[in-house]
Amino acid sequence: MSDLKARIEQANRETIQRMIDSQPVWVDVRRAIEVCPGLSERMIMHAGPPIAWERRAFPQKNSIKGAILYEGWAKTMDEAEELVTAGQVELSPCHEHNAVGSMTGVTSPSMPVLVVKNATFGNEGYILIYETPEKQKLIFGAFGDSVLDNLKWIDRVLAPVLKALVQQMGPLNLRNIIARALTMGDELHSRNTAASALFVLEAMPHLLALDFDRKDLAQVADFIRRSDQFFAHFSMVAGKVTADAAAGIDYSTVLTAMARNGVELGIRVSGLPGQWFTGPAGVIEGLFFGKYTPQDGQRDMGDSAITETIGLGAFAHAAAPTLALTKGSVDMALQYTREMQEICVGNNPNYGIPALGGKGTPLGIDIRKVLDTGIAPVINTGIAHKQGEGQIGVGNARAPLEAFKKALVAFRQKYLN
Amino acid sequence: MSDLKARIEQANRETIQRMIDSQPVWVDVRRAIEVCPGLSERMIMHAGPPIAWERRAFPQKNSIKGAILYEGWAKTMDEAEELVTAGQVELSPCHEHNAVGSMTGVTSPSMPVLVVKNATFGNEGYILIYETPEKQKLIFGAFGDSVLDNLKWIDRVLAPVLKALVQQMGPLNLRNIIARALTMGDELHSRNTAASALFVLEAMPHLLALDFDRKDLAQVADFIRRSDQFFAHFSMVAGKVTADAAAGIDYSTVLTAMARNGVELGIRVSGLPGQWFTGPAGVIEGLFFGKYTPQDGQRDMGDSAITETIGLGAFAHAAAPTLALTKGSVDMALQYTREMQEICVGNNPNYGIPALGGKGTPLGIDIRKVLDTGIAPVINTGIAHKQGEGQIGVGNARAPLEAFKKALVAFRQKYLN
Repeated sequence: MSDLKARIEQANRETIQRMIDSQPVWVDVRRAIEVCPGLSERMIMHAGPPIAWERRAFPQKNSIKGAILYEGWAKTMDEAEELVTAGQVELSPCHEHNAVGSMTGVTSPSMPVLVVKNATFGNEGYILIYETPEKQKLIFGAFGDSVLDNLKWIDRVLAPVLKALVQQMGPLNLRNIIARALTMGDELHSRNTAASALFVLEAMPHLLALDFDRKDLAQVADFIRRSDQFFAHFSMVAGKVTADAAAGIDYSTVLTAMARNGVELGIRVSGLPGQWFTGPAGVIEGLFFGKYTPQDGQRDMGDSAITETIGLGAFAHAAAPTLALTKGSVDMALQYTREMQEICVGNNPNYGIPALGGKGTPLGIDIRKVLDTGIAPVINTGIAHKQGEGQIGVGNARAPLEAFKKALVAFRQKYLN
Repeated sequence: MSDLKARIEQANRETIQRMIDSQPVWVDVRRAIEVCPGLSERMIMHAGPPIAWERRAFPQKNSIKGAILYEGWAKTMDEAEELVTAGQVELSPCHEHNAVGSMTGVTSPSMPVLVVKNATFGNEGYILIYETPEKQKLIFGAFGDSVLDNLKWIDRVLAPVLKALVQQMGPLNLRNIIARALTMGDELHSRNTAASALFVLEAMPHLLALDFDRKDLAQVADFIRRSDQFFAHFSMVAGKVTADAAAGIDYSTVLTAMARNGVELGIRVSGLPGQWFTGPAGVIEGLFFGKYTPQDGQRDMGDSAITETIGLGAFAHAAAPTLALTKGSVDMALQYTREMQEICVGNNPNYGIPALGGKGTPLGIDIRKVLDTGIAPVINTGIAHKQGEGQIGVGNARAPLEAFKKALVAFRQKYLN
C-alpha cells in the first residue's frame, strides 16, 4: 500500500507538472470537420458525458436541432429530431474529439473552430468562437432567426477575419494572457473582461493590417468590444490542451476533465484514460437576470469546467473579487480558492494570484482528496433557461461526489489487481 | 470657532461633492498654444510650483532646453539656456494654464495636447500625449536624437490619428474607464495596464474606420500596445478637470493640487485659490532599474500627484495589489489606502475598490487632518535620473508637512481675520 501511495504521488506530481509545462498557443481557425479527430459528416458534438436522447436536457436538445437546421440537414425542428432518433445524425461528446464546448457545447461539422496547440507537447484542441454577448444564443439552448443570422455572420465575417488575424499575427501565447488577466480581476471562466481587452491589445495592430473590408473589421472589433466573455473560449480550449497533455499517466488520480450535459456531470481521471464517471449535475446557485428564478434554470451544463480542472475559474476566484461581489463578498472569493487548495495536488507557478501574494492557482484535483475531505469542486458558470430562452444568470455549482466514488472504484480495480 | 468649524466642514463636503459629480470626457487633440489660457508663443510650461532657474532640477532644465530645440528657437542646448536666462523664453507651471504635465512636465506651445472637458462643470484641462514606453524620454529629462525623432512622430502621426479618433468616436467618458480599471488592478497613477487596454477596446472599432494610412494606424495601435502607461495621461488630466472644478470654495481646507518640480512640492487649497504652498520634494523609495541606485534618483517630480489629489494613485493602492507586489506586499497596498483614508474628507462612490468590498476611494485631502495626524500624503511615482538618463525606477514618496503648515497659516490669515 505504501508503495502504491508513493507511485500515485509520483504520478500526480508528473500530471500537474505536464499541466504547468503546457504552453497553449492559438494557431488557426478551421471548420470542425477539418480538424476534430473522429468527427464525421453527420455527427454533432455536445458538452458533457454521453447521454441518451430521452434523458438529454431540453436546451441541449434544442441546440442540437438548431445546429441540424443550420447545417441544412432538415427544414424543421421536428424533422431534425427525427434524424437524431432514427440514428441518421450521430451525437458525441466534444471531449472525445479533442474539443470542448461552452454550455450545450453543440458544434456541427461545418462550424468554424479556434485551433489551439500545446506548443510543449504538440497536442491540439478545438472550440467554437464565442457566439454573442446577447442572451439568445445557440450554446445556451436558444434557437430562432436572430440566432441563425448571427451564426451565419460568424461564418461569413468573424471566422475569416480571426483566421486572417492569427495568420498575420503569428501564434498567440494564451498562457501569457491568462497570467496577466489573473492580475487584472479575471478568473478566466465567468470573468474574462481583462483577458478579452488584452486580446484586443495584442490583435489590434495586426487587425489594422488585414486586407479585409474595413466595415467588416470594424464590426469584428465592435463585437469583441461588446463581448466581455470573448476570451472565455480561448481560456477553455487552453484548458483542454493543457489537461489532455496530462491524461493517461499510469497511477495518476488527478482529473483531466469535468464536463456537464445539463443532466449529468462526468469526470475523467489521468490514470483511467478514455473513461467517464458520472453523477447528477449540480443545481446552480447564483444571480438570475430580470424575471427569472432558480426554478427556471437548467442544471449545471458545459465543458467549461475544464477551466476549473486546470486551476482557473472558481479555483482562481481569489483573483476575481469583483465577480465575487456580484454574489457575495471578497472574503467568499478568497475562501473558495483556499477550499479548492485542499483538494489539489499543488499550484501553478505560472498563474499567480495577487491577493494571495502571488501564490499560484491551486492545481490538480485529486479524487482521493475530494473523497477524503468531502469537498466537492466548485464550478463558476452561466445559467441556461430550461426551455430554451437562453442565458438567464450566472452562479456556481458543485461537482457530485458520486462521480468521484465511481472513479475510485475503477481506479482500485485497475491498479490494485 | 465652532461656527468656523461648521463652515469649513460644509465647504469641504461641497468640495468633494464637486469632485464626485465631475465627469471628465476626452473631446479633442489640439496644440497647447491653441487651448491653454495664458500660454504665450515664447513660453514653456513645466510641472510643479514656480522655481528660479538656478534652483531648478537638472532633468527639468534638460527637458526645457530640449523643448526649445524641438521648437527650433535655438540650435544648441547652450543657446537654449541663454534664451531662458536672458528672459527671452518664459517658464510657467502647467497648473497655471489648466494643464498638468507628467514628471518634468515640459510642454512647449506647438506640442499637441489631449483636451479633456469636465462635462458637469464645463471646465477644460490639457496634457501632453503619453510620450513613449522607452526609458529615454523628454518628460524624464532625457534629450537626444531618438527623443527628438519620437516627438516628431507624435506630432506627425500619433496626434493626428488620436484627434481623428476622438472626432469619429465622440467624447470618451474617462470616469467609466477609471471605474472599470479600478476593478482590474490599476490605481491609475503608476499602473494603467487595464485602463490602457480598455481604451483600446473602446477605440478599436473607430480606429478601423479612420481614413488614414493603415501603416500609420498600425503603428499607433502598436505604440499603445507597448505602452501600459498610455492611459496615465488621460487619468492625470481627468484629475486636473476634477480638481479644478472643486477649486475656489470659500472655507474649504481640501487640496486641489499637489505638484512637484523635482526640488519642491507645492500644494493648492480650494479655499485659497491661485496660491502655492511649498516644501522640499520627497526622496523616492522604490524599485530601481538595472544598475541604478537611490543616489541616482531626482527627488519627487511631476504634476501626476493630481491623481492622488482626487483619490487615485497611492490613495487607491488597495485596488492594485500587483503594483504593490513589486515593492512589498498586498497588505502594504491595503495599508496605504487605509492610512490615506485618515486624512480625507470622504470617499468617491463612483470609484469602488473590490478588495475593500466596493468601498469608494478616499477623497479630499484635508490640510487640517494631515497636520492633526502627522500623516503626509503618499504619492506613487516614476523616478527620473538626476543627470538626464531618463526613467530609472518606480516608487513612492511623501508630501512635505511644511507645505501644509504654510497653507494653514495662510488659511488662518484669510478666514480668521
